[in-house]
Amino acid sequence: MQLGMVGLGRMGANMVRRLMRAGHECVVYDVDPDSVKRLAGEGATGASSLQDMVDKLDAPRSVWLMVPAAFVDGTVADLAPLLSKDDTIIDGGNSSYRDDQRRSKEVGEQGLHYVDCGTSGGVWGLDRGYSLMVGGDDAAVGRLQPIFEALAPGIDAAPRTPGRDGDPQPGEAGWLHCGPPGAGHFVKMVHNGIEYGLMAAYAEGLNILRGANAGNAKQADDAETAPLRDPDAYRYDIDIASVAEVWRRGSVVGSWLLDLTAAALASSPQLDQFSGRVSDSGEGRWTAIAAVEEGVPAPVLTSALFSRFSSRDCDEFANKVMSAMRSEFGGHDEKPAS
Amino acid sequence: MQLGMVGLGRMGANMVRRLMRAGHECVVYDVDPDSVKRLAGEGATGASSLQDMVDKLDAPRSVWLMVPAAFVDGTVADLAPLLSKDDTIIDGGNSSYRDDQRRSKEVGEQGLHYVDCGTSGGVWGLDRGYSLMVGGDDAAVGRLQPIFEALAPGIDAAPRTPGRDGDPQPGEAGWLHCGPPGAGHFVKMVHNGIEYGLMAAYAEGLNILRGANAGNAKQADDAETAPLRDPDAYRYDIDIASVAEVWRRGSVVGSWLLDLTAAALASSPQLDQFSGRVSDSGEGRWTAIAAVEEGVPAPVLTSALFSRFSSRDCDEFANKVMSAMRSEFGGHDEKPAS
Amino acid sequence: MQLGMVGLGRMGANMVRRLMRAGHECVVYDVDPDSVKRLAGEGATGASSLQDMVDKLDAPRSVWLMVPAAFVDGTVADLAPLLSKDDTIIDGGNSSYRDDQRRSKEVGEQGLHYVDCGTSGGVWGLDRGYSLMVGGDDAAVGRLQPIFEALAPGIDAAPRTPGRDGDPQPGEAGWLHCGPPGAGHFVKMVHNGIEYGLMAAYAEGLNILRGANAGNAKQADDAETAPLRDPDAYRYDIDIASVAEVWRRGSVVGSWLLDLTAAALASSPQLDQFSGRVSDSGEGRWTAIAAVEEGVPAPVLTSALFSRFSSRDCDEFANKVMSAMRSEFGGHDEKPAS
Amino acid sequence: MQLGMVGLGRMGANMVRRLMRAGHECVVYDVDPDSVKRLAGEGATGASSLQDMVDKLDAPRSVWLMVPAAFVDGTVADLAPLLSKDDTIIDGGNSSYRDDQRRSKEVGEQGLHYVDCGTSGGVWGLDRGYSLMVGGDDAAVGRLQPIFEALAPGIDAAPRTPGRDGDPQPGEAGWLHCGPPGAGHFVKMVHNGIEYGLMAAYAEGLNILRGANAGNAKQADDAETAPLRDPDAYRYDIDIASVAEVWRRGSVVGSWLLDLTAAALASSPQLDQFSGRVSDSGEGRWTAIAAVEEGVPAPVLTSALFSRFSSRDCDEFANKVMSAMRSEFGGHDEKPAS
Repeated sequence: MQLGMVGLGRMGANMVRRLMRAGHECVVYDVDPDSVKRLAGEGATGASSLQDMVDKLDAPRSVWLMVPAAFVDGTVADLAPLLSKDDTIIDGGNSSYRDDQRRSKEVGEQGLHYVDCGTSGGVWGLDRGYSLMVGGDDAAVGRLQPIFEALAPGIDAAPRTPGRDGDPQPGEAGWLHCGPPGAGHFVKMVHNGIEYGLMAAYAEGLNILRGANAGNAKQADDAETAPLRDPDAYRYDIDIASVAEVWRRGSVVGSWLLDLTAAALASSPQLDQFSGRVSDSGEGRWTAIAAVEEGVPAPVLTSALFSRFSSRDCDEFANKVMSAMRSEFGGHDEKPAS
Repeated sequence: MQLGMVGLGRMGANMVRRLMRAGHECVVYDVDPDSVKRLAGEGATGASSLQDMVDKLDAPRSVWLMVPAAFVDGTVADLAPLLSKDDTIIDGGNSSYRDDQRRSKEVGEQGLHYVDCGTSGGVWGLDRGYSLMVGGDDAAVGRLQPIFEALAPGIDAAPRTPGRDGDPQPGEAGWLHCGPPGAGHFVKMVHNGIEYGLMAAYAEGLNILRGANAGNAKQADDAETAPLRDPDAYRYDIDIASVAEVWRRGSVVGSWLLDLTAAALASSPQLDQFSGRVSDSGEGRWTAIAAVEEGVPAPVLTSALFSRFSSRDCDEFANKVMSAMRSEFGGHDEKPAS
Repeated sequence: MQLGMVGLGRMGANMVRRLMRAGHECVVYDVDPDSVKRLAGEGATGASSLQDMVDKLDAPRSVWLMVPAAFVDGTVADLAPLLSKDDTIIDGGNSSYRDDQRRSKEVGEQGLHYVDCGTSGGVWGLDRGYSLMVGGDDAAVGRLQPIFEALAPGIDAAPRTPGRDGDPQPGEAGWLHCGPPGAGHFVKMVHNGIEYGLMAAYAEGLNILRGANAGNAKQADDAETAPLRDPDAYRYDIDIASVAEVWRRGSVVGSWLLDLTAAALASSPQLDQFSGRVSDSGEGRWTAIAAVEEGVPAPVLTSALFSRFSSRDCDEFANKVMSAMRSEFGGHDEKPAS
Repeated sequence: MQLGMVGLGRMGANMVRRLMRAGHECVVYDVDPDSVKRLAGEGATGASSLQDMVDKLDAPRSVWLMVPAAFVDGTVADLAPLLSKDDTIIDGGNSSYRDDQRRSKEVGEQGLHYVDCGTSGGVWGLDRGYSLMVGGDDAAVGRLQPIFEALAPGIDAAPRTPGRDGDPQPGEAGWLHCGPPGAGHFVKMVHNGIEYGLMAAYAEGLNILRGANAGNAKQADDAETAPLRDPDAYRYDIDIASVAEVWRRGSVVGSWLLDLTAAALASSPQLDQFSGRVSDSGEGRWTAIAAVEEGVPAPVLTSALFSRFSSRDCDEFANKVMSAMRSEFGGHDEKPAS
């Protein structure tokens, strides 16, 4: 079927390619004409403007936005007036589900459908397929089913879960209609919250392995340093890259994230090319807020989020407050970085 | 080669079976004679006592213990005097690496080798193979290589990590010599610590999905209840079992633990057969302690551990203290369970 | 000066009493006529309705609302139309600062001032005075200064901070104009967030003292229980009520919350009258959300909040998920409560 | 009575002074002869060696050690052989209670008593008195009662807890015999664990107040930055030093630590003289380990400890691992520090 794609960055362009491989017809637009030209050279229909894209699509139209979260509102504002009743806008980026709820109402007043699609898979999706979490009304989602099926990895991407057989059940092909508008991004939000937790779990564990030789470091004996009670217990030099390999096979902690970690460690055992300033891009925060508002404890996911904040030194003033207290009650001086 | 196996529970028995499939000869012993008989019926050589087992093995002997952590010391104490210089004891269970360090010294005085082997794979290891993390001296570990290779999943159990080619590197076959005595259980300990974190990350996330309909619950308006500021933001009924399926294909959070979660949810979407009292069996605690002693932050792994404690109501007195304070300063009464 | 007070619960009634002690004239109203009658008997001017209260106050009027957060919007909606340009509404309860921002704009369109006042002090404020955190425009806050001074504890309630002398500086009398509308409740919100953290710190610590005799408990030796490696290290029976006393004098952890805890433990060492279900009433959640939105790590405050959620079993489904995983990969059964 | 004091640093010297004020006779020794000379000039009896000190004390002797934790074992080893049956060694520093258990047994074989005394009060103790948590056998602790009473703040240091009257109860004078050897340092350990939690609670809260103007910062709109959904909600410039003052009077969060924080902020509102590298000196770690071993959740105390580790960049490798994963799955680059 026909689909309009707005936003031809890494994600948008690869999704167009995967759709074309499956025989779909894509009309593509980006503020950067070169991106349009490149995909036109691969078989897509290029559009020179949103209006041009709309003109080249048959009604009822489906236009997929793959733009940074900060630009979705502007793009919807430009696009919606060009569309007609029963057309559909899909937001495939990383919007907050609350924005979906609002936008869905806004464009709904004009008779448009609004579909939110949380998309996981990163730079690997072109070949592996994208895991799609979809929110929206049944009519719009139903009409887009061939698109979701082409983008998703398909049922064979994983062995079927024991106990499931017969016709594929919802989710088994790698895409899921999660509920009304916002439900897709809600599920994607929690997906990313979990992702933060998983990443931090591996990261902390590998850091503990790295510290297994702490007993070999010179022990300070001043009053500002906690002594290591039994240095002999910490004299291991663990080959972390090899540990990642052994865990990839047969262990309980095997995962795709571990596969990626093993790859990173294989080429750079100390990861020296990184400084350790870890960004967060919204969903982890929204997940924490959802947990708090629902009254559901999420200590692991929230700790993982806060670790990212700390990695960027957002804890600096708090730490100064603690140093100030120690100075006040005990006359303790800060120790310089060694 | 020949191996003695002491302890024929779920893990020990399956390891014997996997070894026999690979052509190894196993002399088996358990305090329960029926367990011995069963494996003898499958081709193992049964032993009626530790002494009988030792007699049936050719020197240098290798005896693998697969018994609960609490019984290892007793078994070593019984077994070591029966062995001869250059024989090897392997502890394949869940001992603390500190016990390995101690035991290794103790039996070393007698000229015995001590090998610790952290074993992951659970009830699935018979078919999938076991991920093995090994500590010990080079001579003993080298001699046991055929055993480790038979038990491990082998290099083909996972696609090779990009950037790795040529001869298999350490760990790629699914077993790894991690270092001197204790190093194997140290790595296994951290493995389990990570496992706790991963499990909690999924569990918290799915609990947030479950709370996505919090806005539909009756909102209390008393002074003891935090009001939900925007109930309309939480009116989703998410099909959690289907979400697990969609994440299994193409998403960033795909993992073996997610596969298992999907299986559990497929057969019991509400998991009603569980009460939610989550045990912990040592390694998670030791990982937290190692992090603290090394001076390495592990908020995620430790939160996951504490969640298990709380699931078993070990926080009860602390909670009473908080209720008492609220009563003292604000005259607040506790709200009964609804 | 004259003040109208709406809401004569524990907090509102005591504030009226403290104001009258200082010579202020209070016109009081509550939906419960008996509350009005009681305070009228103590010298206040009773009002039979909001309209009656407004009639009995001279312009420019100041009306203080001391009602549950869930009823503020309704009360403002009823009251504002009865007031005149330049009158002031004060919300002294536990509203979210975001509601202040909104309400301030709404009543500002009518020419009214809106002042938010976070109030700490609980049932003790009548005698100790109330710590007041105030937001609003300078004119309205300035006009209310005599009221804030009467309610606040005054500069002598604490020894002056070393380095401060001369005229009292902002905050030293126990009340502070924190900024524009919402600033008072913002500071009060963080105050309560800190309060949660402090309470949990004491509660956890006392729970650890209580567990100091863990080595005397029977140690299970099954595979589902983490063994206590050194039971002899945990054979203390600590008298927790006496510990609270000793810490009240000269220690670094002395505080008002500790004083209250000591009082609770003195009369009930096991706190058996409490079940340990700890409520949370909004500010702790909003503090966590503010931290997340600001990008500031708050692991301690958030952990304290989540502990309250867990105390009310909001972690149940998450725990079931973990038990389900353990069952799947290891065949582990849950242990029953002992 | 007579007391020997070994170690005349800030703590030891002030304790001698406080004891002499109360009429006790102190024989003092330090490796630094100048420290001895200084206190001798104030009325103490100087000793030139441990032997000299022992010679100058009448049997049964009591010798108090006030030396860094790392030097206690050495000092005990030097001192014990010089003492006689029924003499007492008191460790008033920050030893682990496990070391007390061991040392108590060791010197007990020689007929010596061992008393551990956790001491809180810091540089303020000379005037405020020291909060003392004592472990040891009844005979030795009983004999030292006059010393403890002189060092402790006394019952009048705090208003008596409601419900307590008549003769002072244990702990009310500011010192407590907590139990057998180690019990004093166990209670002091938990005291410090709580202290870490309290400090972090204030520090995090003040950091959130500091971030209340986050909406005024330039918002990045790249894919690596979580957007602030409602900047208008975060435009407050809070005067943190004044907030600390207002909380000191009448609020629920009043405490001695808050008093100290107010003092630090009064002289340096931005705390620029600190870098934010927060030391930890043992007890916080041991508290976390005790919680883990007892099976008692301590998420707040442990988070506070880990925050200190992170303040010293001990999370660096973990953060690099997370950056590496983000690079692998999403091609995300790290953002430089701004």
